[in-house]
Amino acid sequence: MGRIFNFSAGPSMLPEEVLRQAADEMLNYQGSGMSVMEMSHRSKVYDGIIKQTEALFRSVMGIPENYRVLFLQGGATMQFAMVPMNLLARRGKADYVLTGSFSTKAYQEALLFGKAIRVAGSTKDEKFCRIPTQAELSLDSGADYVHICQNNTIYGSRWSYLPDTGAVPLVSDMSSCILSEPVDVSQYGLIYAGAQKNIGPAGLALVVIREDLLGEPLPGTPVMLNYKVQAENESMYNTPPTYAIYMAMLVLQWIERQGGLVAMQAKNREKAALLYDYLDTTSFYKTAILKDDRSMMNVTFRTASDALDAQFVKESVAAGMSNLKGHRAAGGMRASIYNAMPRAGVEALVDFMKQFEKANG
Amino acid sequence: MGRIFNFSAGPSMLPEEVLRQAADEMLNYQGSGMSVMEMSHRSKVYDGIIKQTEALFRSVMGIPENYRVLFLQGGATMQFAMVPMNLLARRGKADYVLTGSFSTKAYQEALLFGKAIRVAGSTKDEKFCRIPTQAELSLDSGADYVHICQNNTIYGSRWSYLPDTGAVPLVSDMSSCILSEPVDVSQYGLIYAGAQKNIGPAGLALVVIREDLLGEPLPGTPVMLNYKVQAENESMYNTPPTYAIYMAMLVLQWIERQGGLVAMQAKNREKAALLYDYLDTTSFYKTAILKDDRSMMNVTFRTASDALDAQFVKESVAAGMSNLKGHRAAGGMRASIYNAMPRAGVEALVDFMKQFEKANG
Repeated sequence: MGRIFNFSAGPSMLPEEVLRQAADEMLNYQGSGMSVMEMSHRSKVYDGIIKQTEALFRSVMGIPENYRVLFLQGGATMQFAMVPMNLLARRGKADYVLTGSFSTKAYQEALLFGKAIRVAGSTKDEKFCRIPTQAELSLDSGADYVHICQNNTIYGSRWSYLPDTGAVPLVSDMSSCILSEPVDVSQYGLIYAGAQKNIGPAGLALVVIREDLLGEPLPGTPVMLNYKVQAENESMYNTPPTYAIYMAMLVLQWIERQGGLVAMQAKNREKAALLYDYLDTTSFYKTAILKDDRSMMNVTFRTASDALDAQFVKESVAAGMSNLKGHRAAGGMRASIYNAMPRAGVEALVDFMKQFEKANG
Repeated sequence: MGRIFNFSAGPSMLPEEVLRQAADEMLNYQGSGMSVMEMSHRSKVYDGIIKQTEALFRSVMGIPENYRVLFLQGGATMQFAMVPMNLLARRGKADYVLTGSFSTKAYQEALLFGKAIRVAGSTKDEKFCRIPTQAELSLDSGADYVHICQNNTIYGSRWSYLPDTGAVPLVSDMSSCILSEPVDVSQYGLIYAGAQKNIGPAGLALVVIREDLLGEPLPGTPVMLNYKVQAENESMYNTPPTYAIYMAMLVLQWIERQGGLVAMQAKNREKAALLYDYLDTTSFYKTAILKDDRSMMNVTFRTASDALDAQFVKESVAAGMSNLKGHRAAGGMRASIYNAMPRAGVEALVDFMKQFEKANG
């Protein structure tokens, strides 16, 4: 098919067998006589799809019974508003830890809704090269929640521990690390994620929320942004993004066939190690992130000059690899190696990096 | 392929040749080496797709240059909030005309945001069997906007005229009639529509807004719900529903191949006439909607009893037709015959109705 290795940070690669199945079922889903795109969301067939998708999320992620799974729209950015609109009604206080671009955006959005939205920790002064330690966090035990972004897509760092927030619910943006390894969901009050990295196509956002946090939102919250309404209507207050949910089902089935999140973690660790091990042996490329805080999903690196970085990106495209240019906020290069990136793609990238070093080192 | 005639009110049928093209391009879009679902929304290839989609909307609908086209999420229900959040900042006053379920929901949502949200007309007391006349509307010339739902999916009625609102912008929910016939966009201040009837898959909402209405929204409006921010970022403040937009492009290309909206209107009139002409010759079935206000997209009818209605629906499924059961709010039957429903589907339905009448009349 002439498919290439696509290192995009999101939307990003999907497993080829998932795409094949979607293509095969496009005109007639399992004898229903129609495409999943054409199905009434209230039909029996579609009800089977959304219920199976939820069941798969629950089994694959090990989501406890006292958590609800919501399929929403608007990406993680919509959650930057929905989290405070729904969780601040009690005290209007929340703590945000700033570790990159998206955690900062989430904090700025929350300022619209609370009287005491605090920065409880930040590594901005160090260009987000690491995650704050527990001792560096200044957490308010009276806050409604503590917000973190667990994997920083742009800078290429990640939380290698979960902060101890005591009785205060931990809210985590897991957009770029969800489904990449097992997590203990019971450690969180709320998890959210845009789908377009490890779940499926853009246009779907997943929310996993502990039931006791489903309360009344702030006055003036639109009905579509009310977690309680969405939970009561099982994500069908209006028409959900039906096809994106179906694609998520196919991806989750693929993850199960791979051996679940334990197997995904092993593969992802191997893929990341191929890159980081090489980066640690050369001084031609540098990565800005401290060793303990390196992301398993987004590997950032650069050469000694912007001109050489640009040459690297240009030649990588000719070598059949796309989207290796880093985000403009961070510069350099970024290889996003989510679940669907095959090991062969990372091997090809490392080979190319070695050749490029040889030619320009 | 064993495809059936699907009379669902939405999500609903898509043209078979559109689905075939989507299946063909699923693994590799036009030599890009990837699926449209896998593309970075910031890539050159995807930029071509979203730009072409907008250009097609503009040419097919004849959208004037002083209107912006936005690709959003959350369906029409999210617009029930976005419209007041963005348009009420001036005076906090709006007029709503209630002609069915969705216009009523839009009105109720607006109450969250304005100090003077008025019902400017309603046919609720007549079970929404007709649209109010211009003379029946009590419009406030000082309102920020007048809101209507142009086609009532559940009851099967439609506005056969556009209300004269003077200098006050007309806001229209066109979810279930958009692209079904030519409209004069310059008559509107804002048009919105969920995609899952005549545009493409669920998870995409279209907004067409006159530029002078892009102002500051109410305080506390989330950034994702701010029309101005979305317009300034060309619908890419964050990742848009990329695949749904691509599907809309394919549907618009199909409409162009059919001869545009003039040709669609001719076909849609013919299809609707097949049903209404038959309904007018029989007393076995009744339709509650006044003749002048009948929808061209959603044809509602019923027999003399609920039991017979249920039998009709059951037997229609066996005859290869799905989703003919009416909405629970209206009862009876409903045949949604959007652009993608072939004439053969309507003919098969009329044949079935005649047979059913013969057997049970």
